[in-house]
Amino acid sequence: MTGGYALLVADLIGVAVFAASGASAAVAKRLDLFGVAFVGFAAALGGGILRDVVIGAVPPLAFADWRYAVTAVVASVAVFWLHPALHRVRRTVLVLDAAGLGLFTVTGTLKALEAGVPAVGACLVGMLTAIGGGLTRDLLTGEIPAVLQREIYAVVALGGAVLVTVLYRLDQAHLLPLAAAATLITGLRIVALYRRWSAPVAVP
Amino acid sequence: MTGGYALLVADLIGVAVFAASGASAAVAKRLDLFGVAFVGFAAALGGGILRDVVIGAVPPLAFADWRYAVTAVVASVAVFWLHPALHRVRRTVLVLDAAGLGLFTVTGTLKALEAGVPAVGACLVGMLTAIGGGLTRDLLTGEIPAVLQREIYAVVALGGAVLVTVLYRLDQAHLLPLAAAATLITGLRIVALYRRWSAPVAVP
Amino acid sequence: MTGGYALLVADLIGVAVFAASGASAAVAKRLDLFGVAFVGFAAALGGGILRDVVIGAVPPLAFADWRYAVTAVVASVAVFWLHPALHRVRRTVLVLDAAGLGLFTVTGTLKALEAGVPAVGACLVGMLTAIGGGLTRDLLTGEIPAVLQREIYAVVALGGAVLVTVLYRLDQAHLLPLAAAATLITGLRIVALYRRWSAPVAVP
Repeated sequence: MTGGYALLVADLIGVAVFAASGASAAVAKRLDLFGVAFVGFAAALGGGILRDVVIGAVPPLAFADWRYAVTAVVASVAVFWLHPALHRVRRTVLVLDAAGLGLFTVTGTLKALEAGVPAVGACLVGMLTAIGGGLTRDLLTGEIPAVLQREIYAVVALGGAVLVTVLYRLDQAHLLPLAAAATLITGLRIVALYRRWSAPVAVP
Repeated sequence: MTGGYALLVADLIGVAVFAASGASAAVAKRLDLFGVAFVGFAAALGGGILRDVVIGAVPPLAFADWRYAVTAVVASVAVFWLHPALHRVRRTVLVLDAAGLGLFTVTGTLKALEAGVPAVGACLVGMLTAIGGGLTRDLLTGEIPAVLQREIYAVVALGGAVLVTVLYRLDQAHLLPLAAAATLITGLRIVALYRRWSAPVAVP
Repeated sequence: MTGGYALLVADLIGVAVFAASGASAAVAKRLDLFGVAFVGFAAALGGGILRDVVIGAVPPLAFADWRYAVTAVVASVAVFWLHPALHRVRRTVLVLDAAGLGLFTVTGTLKALEAGVPAVGACLVGMLTAIGGGLTRDLLTGEIPAVLQREIYAVVALGGAVLVTVLYRLDQAHLLPLAAAATLITGLRIVALYRRWSAPVAVP
């Protein structure tokens, strides 16, 4: 019970953080208030909607539980009004984004496994849950998705999804090991950021 | 029975109008005949396909009832051949587009509610049904979606979706009140166009 | 049994070829190794995921059978390392791409028909299965989809889907006629390439 509540709170924090990242991108493109809220919503909930559609959990949580949509829209509107102040907390936002990545990877992979998706597919669904929102954000604002171009981001999510799948198969998918996995993903992402790790690009 | 038939006719008019808007955008981008038909199809039926996938009504109506696809393709091909004449009827097209917005909002919200989606989610699904086609059209033709950038469009749809949800909860989702709601959405959209209402953009 | 195995092998060849086309486009856009693998995956499996979501076959085969994802990723990574050599085999790649088009049209249409989608819808789903991956590839790399702009590509798929539907209705959807249909689609696509057939563009 308390575990479920902790998970919901953590999930909503992830939604708020990803919504803020989407809203920031939309403000930079000079979209109007509705556009900012919409891109924020898509960045926060696009990955989860894709996950739920693919595992057959319809209607997706983003539409079935009003707290998700409201959290995304409130965070987006806050960014719309407060965005000049965001530059000063950019470091905080990146850390929170890493936290969102860890969390969405864990919950996405777990939900896919519980819906009966086999291991390889569940890892892919978990990764897509974590990166799907950022992909949607970039497509809506006319950019080639950043996750495909720079830095170690999706690979950390994929590694985390594999870890969650192993835990699940070992029957260890309890609150504590899962929280440790999310923390590990978040930590790796932060290290990748600070060390400027990046994936190789093909020789021309 | 007559109500269902009226709804189908109105729905197909919405499909034809949105197909024409998609086909016009595709002609402007110098796409070939197939591209014009495809973008017209996507603009007319993309919102409905998204709606049906999200509420679990598969296969979506766009694939389950041939009249939808045929209407979209015929309208698109007509635009392909007649597009120079379209400039002269641009005002008519904008009014018809507003009618499509009203109609798709009402049917989208209603279908979501009847599929058991809770109120907030149903409003979002209704709005997405109405704006999804235009979003797809813009993504396919390489534009940042217009609905995110200018004018009051999606907000009118969202307001209409809230109205439909209230009617549904009050057990008043009959033909007449719903037709009034669609008319109200259409009217508001036309007023927004003529008055050049637009949503605020963030201060740089 | 042998037929099912032949179909699987052929399906995986289609996956590998489409993955290679996606990976090539991603290398050209200077995406990193992950980006190349992701676009390859999306090009190979995007059409099939769309098909399975739309006909209600969740989780989609791309997530339910690990051989699909592994084939797509291995082919993409191979292109990442070998891409300079690809120029020399460009003709081979185009022929294989035509083979993939033929195959995905046949399997996509058939799966839709077997899932109970009516004829017109099944033809559209079959065509979308065949062209959906290329569409996704182009959207992810910031291009207006090539299939909407040039050459006879989707139209060949649509014609093939109609043929498969006729065979199915005549109760002739056996291995041999279907293989003949796939071969015909592939052949037509190759002829269209060599003859530079293209669809008309609207008069300005």
